Amino acid sequence: MCPLVPYDDNYWMRHALQEARLAYEEGEVPIGAVIVANNKLIAQAHNQVERLNDPTAHAELLAITAATEALGGKYLTDCTLYVTLEPCAMCIGALRWAQIGQIVFGASDSKGGYQRWAPSVPHPKTTIKSGVMAEESTQLLTSFFQERR
Amino acid sequence: MCPLVPYDDNYWMRHALQEARLAYEEGEVPIGAVIVANNKLIAQAHNQVERLNDPTAHAELLAITAATEALGGKYLTDCTLYVTLEPCAMCIGALRWAQIGQIVFGASDSKGGYQRWAPSVPHPKTTIKSGVMAEESTQLLTSFFQERR
Repeated sequence: MCPLVPYDDNYWMRHALQEARLAYEEGEVPIGAVIVANNKLIAQAHNQVERLNDPTAHAELLAITAATEALGGKYLTDCTLYVTLEPCAMCIGALRWAQIGQIVFGASDSKGGYQRWAPSVPHPKTTIKSGVMAEESTQLLTSFFQERR
Repeated sequence: MCPLVPYDDNYWMRHALQEARLAYEEGEVPIGAVIVANNKLIAQAHNQVERLNDPTAHAELLAITAATEALGGKYLTDCTLYVTLEPCAMCIGALRWAQIGQIVFGASDSKGGYQRWAPSVPHPKTTIKSGVMAEESTQLLTSFFQERR
């Protein structure tokens, strides 16, 4: 019997949350993402919109670009993206183009999330799981915006 | 009386079409985009999905990144994007984040365009015009895909 389950969803979401914390420290809206293939981390990124002055520099887009670079192909069919917040319309569109195998996100985003704006965009072969360590993600976002009020 | 109207929509769309032709020559799906501010070209790009192995490397996203870099800010409120094909869900999401002032596109894309997948995503302050030199854009796409059959 092995008591360890090192590579469950919480394990990888903790990596994504660590990326979100890096964003926080840099004054960026704290959202982080990692991409995993065969239980290996192949990409990690956090929101860099402010630093790059680039509205497309969301954690998910940066992670997709890094993952396809790592794999040498434009599809991520055997990969899982872990992201701390529900993806927006732009990012879910990108994840569709990448044909990502699975998306696991933390907190839902009723204001800007794809479920409100682009609910039919996810690729039909992509499985989606939500609510993984959502509270940690929400806490980080809440304290970020409270500090800036 | 001045008989010249050099900076009308067709003028800039010809630049976008020229970018689409560059994509064609590189074996990329021929889609091009330019971004214009105060009658000046500030960004030009074409689809580079194959060359970069990156499903996010659409002409619009590359143009947004170049334009925000050129302007030193993350918003494009006083800019117009000219793109040869109707943007997809990913790109319209990016254009919303950029708060682009105007979008002018050529051919409609009933299969993959935002009007089908994400019709409410455009920023409420963005004006959108379609059908500018649509025939030239469609011809380029049609001959590209015919060659590859």
